[in-house]
Parts: sequence; C-alpha cells; structure tokens
Amino acid sequence: MPLADFRITSGKNFSLADFNPDAKPFSSGDKVADQARLTELSAQLDAQQDIFYAEHQRKLLIVLQGMDTSGKDGTVRGVFRSFDPLGIRVVSFKSPTAEELAHDYLWRIHAQVPRAGEIVVFNRSHYEDVLITRVHEWIDEAECERRYKQLRAFETMLLETGTTIVKCFLHISKDEQKARLEARLADPQKQWKFDPKDLEERQYWKNYETAYTAAIAATSTPEAPWYVVPANSKTHRNLMVAEILMAVFEKLKPAYPPGKPALAKLKVA
Amino acid sequence: MPLADFRITSGKNFSLADFNPDAKPFSSGDKVADQARLTELSAQLDAQQDIFYAEHQRKLLIVLQGMDTSGKDGTVRGVFRSFDPLGIRVVSFKSPTAEELAHDYLWRIHAQVPRAGEIVVFNRSHYEDVLITRVHEWIDEAECERRYKQLRAFETMLLETGTTIVKCFLHISKDEQKARLEARLADPQKQWKFDPKDLEERQYWKNYETAYTAAIAATSTPEAPWYVVPANSKTHRNLMVAEILMAVFEKLKPAYPPGKPALAKLKVA
Repeated sequence: MPLADFRITSGKNFSLADFNPDAKPFSSGDKVADQARLTELSAQLDAQQDIFYAEHQRKLLIVLQGMDTSGKDGTVRGVFRSFDPLGIRVVSFKSPTAEELAHDYLWRIHAQVPRAGEIVVFNRSHYEDVLITRVHEWIDEAECERRYKQLRAFETMLLETGTTIVKCFLHISKDEQKARLEARLADPQKQWKFDPKDLEERQYWKNYETAYTAAIAATSTPEAPWYVVPANSKTHRNLMVAEILMAVFEKLKPAYPPGKPALAKLKVA
Repeated sequence: MPLADFRITSGKNFSLADFNPDAKPFSSGDKVADQARLTELSAQLDAQQDIFYAEHQRKLLIVLQGMDTSGKDGTVRGVFRSFDPLGIRVVSFKSPTAEELAHDYLWRIHAQVPRAGEIVVFNRSHYEDVLITRVHEWIDEAECERRYKQLRAFETMLLETGTTIVKCFLHISKDEQKARLEARLADPQKQWKFDPKDLEERQYWKNYETAYTAAIAATSTPEAPWYVVPANSKTHRNLMVAEILMAVFEKLKPAYPPGKPALAKLKVA
C-alpha cells in the first residue's frame, strides 16, 4: 500500500470518513514480523538522525494529533525512543497557562520549533487552537478560517526557513477509545493517566471528527502534508509512523558536512 | 567496588590525582558481559523512569562535566537513550549568547531545571562558570569563591524544592584525549565534531585539573555529591553512570500515584 494514499496534500474532497481506523496498510499480517520490521526501521532512523544532527543545517518538526487515547504518548515511546536524546526533543502542549493565554496562540508554539539539526515532536500542537476551541465554540467560524490562514502562513515561513513539517493524525474509532478508557480506569497503575475531562470530550466525538476533517482539509499542502495514520492497532500505528519518517529521510538525504583534508594533517601535542 | 568510593560528599582531602581514569571498578573484566549488564540496567532504568514520570512529584537533575572528548555526548547516547523521550530532556550548554551574558550566569541554567516527574541531563552546566572562566582567569579567586557559594545555595534551593542532583565528572587522561582527538581528525565523518579550540584548551590541561579539583571539592555535599567516573573506557563509563542512576532510583523509590477505586466503577458511554 503506497504511503501516498494516506498523505493528504490538498483539502479537495478530503473526508476523514473515507479512512478506516482499523486498517493496517503497512502490516505484513504477522505481528512478530511487524515488530521486527519496526526494530529494523528504528536502527535505520537512528543512523539517519545521527547524520541529520551532524549536518546541522535543516530542521524537522513532527506534529502528533489525535483524539484522547489515540496513542500520542505511545508513539513517542514506541517510535522516537530509538533516537539519540541529543538530537530529539518532545514538547507536550497542555492547556495554555495564564501567561500563554495573554499572548497570541502561536507564541508558545514558535518558542519550541526545532533548531538546526534538531528533530522536535509536538505532542499536541497549534492545531488544538482550531480543534477543541472550535468544538466548544470558543471561536466562531470566521475566526477559525482566519486561524487556518495564519497556520498556513506560519508553516510556510517555517518551511521557507529550512524546516520539514510532518503532521500525523492518529486515527482511532470511538469504540477503540471506549476500550482504552476502560483499560485506564480498570488498572490502578494506569489510572494516573485518566482525566475526567476525557469522558466529557468523548461526548463531542462527532464534532471532533468534523473539526479534524475541516482542519486537515484546510492545512494540507504538498509541502506540509497531513498523514492519516490508522491507529486502532498500536503496532501498526508505530510501524506506519516509522515508515513515514523513513520516507521523509529518504527525501531529505541528510549528509555529513564535507570532510576537511587539512584537519587530518593536524598534530595533537 | 562500592559506589561510595567514587561518590564525593565532602571536599575534605579531595584530589582528582587520587583517581585513575583507567580504572574499571564496575567492569566484570569481560566487555560482552559488561554490555549485557548495561542492557539489563537500561531496562530497569526505563521501568523506574516510567514510574517517576507517573508519580509526577519529584525532579531529577543529572550534570555531566568533563574535559573535551571525555564522552558527555557518548554518555547521553549510551545511557539515556533507553529512557522514554517524554520523561527526559537533554540540555547542552554552549558558549553563552549575548542575551545570556547580559544576565547573571545562573539565569539560563535556572530556566532549564527539571519539572515534576522529569529527568533533565545537563551536558555541561553551571560548573563551566567556575572552570573555563577560572582557567583563563576571566574571574579571579575571590569571585570564584563567591560563585562556589552561589552554586551551593542554588543547589540547596533545588534540593529543598524536590530536585535530586547527581553530578558526574567523566574522568579521562591526557593521553586518552590525544587518542580521541586524533580519531576525530582522521575520520571525515567525525571531523564535524572537531573544534580547533579543543587543541587550545588542551594546553591548559593541568589548569583544568586544578580547577576541577577545586570545584568538586567546593561543591560536594552529601545531598548533591559529585561522582568521579573513570572514563578512559567508554563501556565502563556508560556502565558506571547507569549503576549510579540505578542506585539513585533505589533510594528515591518512585511509586505510582495511589489508585482510585472509585474510578474502576466509572462507565464509559
């Protein structure tokens, strides 16, 4: 199954309803083989990241979005743990603080974008400002449309100044969320992850689907595409995100800075 | 060999010259067995970190210092890569920017200390401000003594507000540095790591030893000890840092937040 089928480069005719969260397009059908493939990809990604860091020129921003329990934390752990901590940074955006709310909504985001050679993972992102805000009608449609434009302009600026942007929507079904919330509630060692707000937000499932569809449609471009990642299966989700990253690196082709023959002649006293 | 022999809790009679950078006190004598032990420790550390993150109460700060090429980056990669990126953050302090220099020297440091449940690794740290600055006599002895006091006061405040502080001096010999610099110079894929300043700083080896001895002596306390890590062997260095962390967690005993039996009765609609 080609990655292109899940890479949204234009909002034209996009609908989340056309995607099946149960699909496993990158699975071999055998879980053990899938895990072996992930291990193999992890080693390759690690090597690529090492060179990307050494190159110290370009920046890579990965955005993870999805409903509650869709596996944003799990993706960080399952995919990004293979990376050298020197070259990767995970930023988890929570409800904005009073200080953050006193600024424009992109202020806290801009402060966290990657520097040269760095990979940054946004665990939630600037997209919350057109999702939860729109679902609860804290902003109206006109403001939401303005924000889509602002988001496109912001990402265009990042792209033009050397940042590659990869946006992943981790796609789960409402039933799968139910099962995951129940698992959290039942296990005392998982209860700390449970937030009563998750049950409230779950009431707005349809509205979230609408808001995600609109946001993905409005902000998918060939340069900053969204990927719809079927995520009911955790193994498949990790595997597919790793495949997406590998495809990104294959396009970026990171390279070590050119060697300096003069250095090889230096003597260390 | 007990860890206590390498844990400096008081400056009394401390001299770096009493430590052998070639020593391998935590090695079994067999490299393969040492690597297997590191793998085992990594899995244990990962589990501990997971709970530390879930507990969301205390903070852990790890300071890595050492001469150029002593293996600070290598330790990050070799030891801290086993940690979930959600719960660990590596901060590499470089030469201060104009903005940083316009503030007191602890300003940029304080901004980066760990939050509840977080582990932060300082790759270089506030200690540079009593090391390179003292070696080049940018500060005089009186100012250096003032800074030792300021550092102790700063760390005391961090301790009293819930931060565990672990300071590791990665101890290599001058000959080992020579070999490592030569390896960097000879390999085009490692040349990007080479900074001509490293050769200049190498001239000050003795002065650095004096400055480290003085700084470690002045800032070692039972609550915020320094560890002298023999680091001529990379495998041993990683193994020993992992053992230090394991001992720290054994003392901290992180625990999941108490379960909430009421949650288990909640229904997910």
